[in-house]
Amino acid sequence: MKIEMADAARLLEEMEDIVIVTHSHPDGDTLGAGYALCRGLRQLGKRARVICPDPIPAKYQYLWQQLSPLPDFTPTHVVAVDVAAIQLLGALEGTYAGRFDLCIDHHPSNELYAKATWLQPKAAATAEMMYQLLVSLGVTFDRHLANCIYTGLSTDTGCFKYANTTPQTMRIAAEMMEYGADAAAINRVMFDTKSRSCMELEKLAIASLEFHLDGCCAMMYITQDMYAKSHSDNSECEGLASIPRQAEGVQVGITLRENPDGSFKASVRTDETVSACAICSLAGGGGHLRAAGCTLPGPLPVAKEAMLRYVRQVLEESGYPCH
Amino acid sequence: MKIEMADAARLLEEMEDIVIVTHSHPDGDTLGAGYALCRGLRQLGKRARVICPDPIPAKYQYLWQQLSPLPDFTPTHVVAVDVAAIQLLGALEGTYAGRFDLCIDHHPSNELYAKATWLQPKAAATAEMMYQLLVSLGVTFDRHLANCIYTGLSTDTGCFKYANTTPQTMRIAAEMMEYGADAAAINRVMFDTKSRSCMELEKLAIASLEFHLDGCCAMMYITQDMYAKSHSDNSECEGLASIPRQAEGVQVGITLRENPDGSFKASVRTDETVSACAICSLAGGGGHLRAAGCTLPGPLPVAKEAMLRYVRQVLEESGYPCH
Repeated sequence: MKIEMADAARLLEEMEDIVIVTHSHPDGDTLGAGYALCRGLRQLGKRARVICPDPIPAKYQYLWQQLSPLPDFTPTHVVAVDVAAIQLLGALEGTYAGRFDLCIDHHPSNELYAKATWLQPKAAATAEMMYQLLVSLGVTFDRHLANCIYTGLSTDTGCFKYANTTPQTMRIAAEMMEYGADAAAINRVMFDTKSRSCMELEKLAIASLEFHLDGCCAMMYITQDMYAKSHSDNSECEGLASIPRQAEGVQVGITLRENPDGSFKASVRTDETVSACAICSLAGGGGHLRAAGCTLPGPLPVAKEAMLRYVRQVLEESGYPCH
Repeated sequence: MKIEMADAARLLEEMEDIVIVTHSHPDGDTLGAGYALCRGLRQLGKRARVICPDPIPAKYQYLWQQLSPLPDFTPTHVVAVDVAAIQLLGALEGTYAGRFDLCIDHHPSNELYAKATWLQPKAAATAEMMYQLLVSLGVTFDRHLANCIYTGLSTDTGCFKYANTTPQTMRIAAEMMEYGADAAAINRVMFDTKSRSCMELEKLAIASLEFHLDGCCAMMYITQDMYAKSHSDNSECEGLASIPRQAEGVQVGITLRENPDGSFKASVRTDETVSACAICSLAGGGGHLRAAGCTLPGPLPVAKEAMLRYVRQVLEESGYPCH
């Protein structure tokens, strides 16, 4: 059942011992919004804790600063934050599927798996919704709470860079800065710090960058050998896929990552003239209009050749000549 | 003479035929604030145009969208925008030095070369000051004016990422978005688009990245040969210098660029534990606390060895052990 913010506030007011569940491969929004809710509920005298299906990267540790660990309690209520579907619960799916009293989320694709779902698809981040909810619950903001909300806003908008950013996002961020959010320090950790292994992988990957189809298509490769050389793995360095598209004049940017079985996972990013989803559909994949993926049989020259064929086909069909 | 905003507004109201001068190697703030002022003054019935000492990169062309070219006029007044010192006028220094009636700027180092200077060192961007000034002059905002102000705010703060961003910066940006500023499109051009030659140079430079001093120092090289191979030159790709510092654990990031005479220009970026300025001072250079530069004799192995010696010395003196 879909509900409004006032209903969500009422539901939370009636809960006592609450566990807040984030999605797997946690990001700044699910964690920021989750810890913001936890802090708010504790301030209202309730018992609350956050659980995450995966280990939380150390860079997020300020989110639970000065949040005392609670003696273990048996939750009477379960709340999902920024979790669009049950499958995103990873290892926690078995424990919590079917137990969600409330879900707070901004993903249009939310599968409405909870008893009650407050969904705002136009919110830039779940943290933006959480700010409004905590205000309506009468929670007092401090620096720690402000850090949580700011983190969600900043990370889900690429530091206020992307089209999902609204004037409201900017104004809430301004207010969080006034409550003492360490905006510049958070942004440096989230956007300007890379692990050594990720940097090594990036160095190897960028060296492989090639331009094709009169410069309309840029392609980059990551092989198992590169993972080994850089001591990194496929779970790291998600930002890499955006690199090929950044080159001026490139309409289609492709990153081919070798799977352990020798096949290749292609990540496709396009500009507004081409559908990434159409390209990947030709290979049995799919995704969004500007970001999509598919899997291709190896070895590399075969995968590359196939990918270029699909790109050429869609570019020709779309009627957008190269430059 | 230093003046306040109300004085600057009064001065502008009395001017008729105005030339607005930006600094050389123009960026989004000098151009955004300059064209915003030009649009505002024209709306007030004055004749105004912007001149820049260097060719303006094509990516900024939306700043003068729907701004009709004026028949040439002899300016009665000259206004500098975002220009901290006369030397930043490049080819225009001879024509305009000594002729500035007004300077509007946010650089703390402003040399007060104009008859009257309105200086706000705490403003994130000159565009932030320009917004306030145009409001006080009663100018009506539209999408084009909003694009100019937004561009200055966004580019001078690294898309609201850096410590100079204030709640006021965020709120003005929010208002510009409401007036129709194409925020996401502007940010994509400014932050997510690289020229092919710049991307080629980055690829070659990143391949040279090395770690030294137990990982405390990362160093990257750009040789004349790399400029030639990538068809780029020293005036491009300014963002490169920030790359070495981004690696996790790196306190000192160095980019060595070969000059045509075989010497090397070092760009040094540090974290909060080390002074970049102290390192460069040892080589006769200087700069800011976290970003400084110096010139070193070549060839590359000699320059590299010298640089590492200076870094080691400052790291040891600062008493911050490597990890």
